[in-house]
Amino acid sequence: MACTNSLKPISNYKAQPASDSDIPLRANVKPSLVFSRSLPTKDFKISTTYNQKFSTVRSSRGLTPQAFFFRKPKPEPSRSISAKVQELYVYEINERDRGSPAYLRLSQKETNSLGDLVPFSNKLYSGDLQKRLGITAGLCVLIQHLPDKKGDRYEATYSFYFGDYGHISVQGAYLTYADTYLAVTGGSGVFEGVYGTVKLQQIVFPFKLFYTFYLKGIKDLPAELVVRPVEPSPSVEPSAAAKAAEPQARVSNFTN
Amino acid sequence: MACTNSLKPISNYKAQPASDSDIPLRANVKPSLVFSRSLPTKDFKISTTYNQKFSTVRSSRGLTPQAFFFRKPKPEPSRSISAKVQELYVYEINERDRGSPAYLRLSQKETNSLGDLVPFSNKLYSGDLQKRLGITAGLCVLIQHLPDKKGDRYEATYSFYFGDYGHISVQGAYLTYADTYLAVTGGSGVFEGVYGTVKLQQIVFPFKLFYTFYLKGIKDLPAELVVRPVEPSPSVEPSAAAKAAEPQARVSNFTN
Amino acid sequence: MACTNSLKPISNYKAQPASDSDIPLRANVKPSLVFSRSLPTKDFKISTTYNQKFSTVRSSRGLTPQAFFFRKPKPEPSRSISAKVQELYVYEINERDRGSPAYLRLSQKETNSLGDLVPFSNKLYSGDLQKRLGITAGLCVLIQHLPDKKGDRYEATYSFYFGDYGHISVQGAYLTYADTYLAVTGGSGVFEGVYGTVKLQQIVFPFKLFYTFYLKGIKDLPAELVVRPVEPSPSVEPSAAAKAAEPQARVSNFTN
Repeated sequence: MACTNSLKPISNYKAQPASDSDIPLRANVKPSLVFSRSLPTKDFKISTTYNQKFSTVRSSRGLTPQAFFFRKPKPEPSRSISAKVQELYVYEINERDRGSPAYLRLSQKETNSLGDLVPFSNKLYSGDLQKRLGITAGLCVLIQHLPDKKGDRYEATYSFYFGDYGHISVQGAYLTYADTYLAVTGGSGVFEGVYGTVKLQQIVFPFKLFYTFYLKGIKDLPAELVVRPVEPSPSVEPSAAAKAAEPQARVSNFTN
Repeated sequence: MACTNSLKPISNYKAQPASDSDIPLRANVKPSLVFSRSLPTKDFKISTTYNQKFSTVRSSRGLTPQAFFFRKPKPEPSRSISAKVQELYVYEINERDRGSPAYLRLSQKETNSLGDLVPFSNKLYSGDLQKRLGITAGLCVLIQHLPDKKGDRYEATYSFYFGDYGHISVQGAYLTYADTYLAVTGGSGVFEGVYGTVKLQQIVFPFKLFYTFYLKGIKDLPAELVVRPVEPSPSVEPSAAAKAAEPQARVSNFTN
Repeated sequence: MACTNSLKPISNYKAQPASDSDIPLRANVKPSLVFSRSLPTKDFKISTTYNQKFSTVRSSRGLTPQAFFFRKPKPEPSRSISAKVQELYVYEINERDRGSPAYLRLSQKETNSLGDLVPFSNKLYSGDLQKRLGITAGLCVLIQHLPDKKGDRYEATYSFYFGDYGHISVQGAYLTYADTYLAVTGGSGVFEGVYGTVKLQQIVFPFKLFYTFYLKGIKDLPAELVVRPVEPSPSVEPSAAAKAAEPQARVSNFTN
């Protein structure tokens, strides 16, 4: 999660016929460190054209007839397992190195308004902040700006990626001023068949969020994911090793 | 739901270098009552910048170590409950006071086309129209305009909010010319672990919709939500008390 | 699925004050066959206005009081059925006649970047390529361009439509350079109550994809959907009859 809103008046953005040099090169400046830059008045582009270099054939990896037709079916988790609630703690942290969030002010209004969309992707760490797990990825739809709450309501649809362990998808409300529970809509890998909810707690808006998943429908979580969480506070930070995604401080094939 | 489409030719929109005074102030005019206004030719804005006023620390409410580490796990609903189908009836009504829908004509085509996106949020009432429950919130993706049907196909991802009772998330088709069944993808609160489908019936496009949820996987619905629905017809209206969200005509902490 | 990316430098798009004649009429040219066209610099439009022609009343079909109040509840699938994994094979093919995908370069960056959105809708065929089933429909959110992989990560939320059989909704990652597993989040019709995962295999990017659904929570699939799949390869094509959606080569009321 961690959609953001930039309440700069739109007058700061419009008007000036910017030259290309107004756009800092990504090689020089990290996008999230570019402050208040005025985007040149280029229109967004829509394309239904295929670039030829992408029309080349890519065959599916390792898809021999045998592998395909005689693949062993996946194990069938017993439903008797499913009613057990397992808690999973993770931190989502925006380290400002992924160009996220992209606040699309499509409402063309001065304040955050219905019509604005916010794609985002942040880093995911274990609840004890000792391991890099992967990323979050998805879309926030701005529903409402609430002046009295000094915040916003978003409708969020996104996923949490845990490297080789698979992913969990969620759907529900993200409020910038209060905790919320989102629905767990499904998952893959060790989360195949998962259902339940996830509690979203904002620690430092919009950079640090703490989640408690209440998961059902799956086998026991891998030991590596079952950790005693660091109590959420504004000062929490991933371990240096986790931040650097060192081998002992990351899950297998951590999503990046 | 209740995505809409405005088939005004794009020539009505473009061109004129509008002044700011062309935009009616929200304080004066309800957005949905502003007819055919020409939006000024401002480009939409994308921002990866954080406004400083939002970088302030917000600690999580009531997150003492005790509360955190010794929280009682949530009750585990027995799966034997889950196979029971419970019907839940609600009305979704667009009272034109939420600035919804925001029809984003990103296709830049004259007729509704793939590329158009429609964030929306409407009011939610109980099936007997005696209580305000909350809101809907989400996104419609225009898939196809069907001239022979005089309507559109949308792919919809949204949630229904019921105040303290929680929410239900759904995903599926919204056709402006026919009823559809969407998938219930999950929920929170009393809807934690829910699955099933929901039937969407359009009564007055795009202002009044009637939904019948077929819910499984949850305990018995709260009595307050189990009502005998008013038969859908174009003339149905919420009770005055429900419209005003009077204390006896709303659920606890109704979403707004 | 089959989001695409067109890596044409943005300089190809911008600048020229195009005349309306630059936009090929849909009646004359299929959108997906229009190569490298420069879109005129029209701003996208947002509208909260209702066109009067859409404010007309549409009553719900066949909604007599009897039908409504005495409708038989839906059958309750036994949960004992649910743990069985059923595989369902389908091909998703972009035949370039649906104006899909619509690559919305909302990031306004030269390369695919967070902020870009890609609504899409393709055709759906049975795994043996003998029957037209319906369509896919949904949204890809570009998360990341990965130069070393020469590809992109998308977060995808979409549905598969099977005519009268209903639909399956999914959520998860689409990588243009690797197979992925997405979560099955729910469904309708014969897929009511479904959960599980789906494996996405790209055959010819972004035109041909092969999916293996691992479905649980539902009764035995209709025999018509249980087929021995054609092994995925770049040369696979639907049968001529399926392409033409001839009566014997389509499911009942195939989605189109």
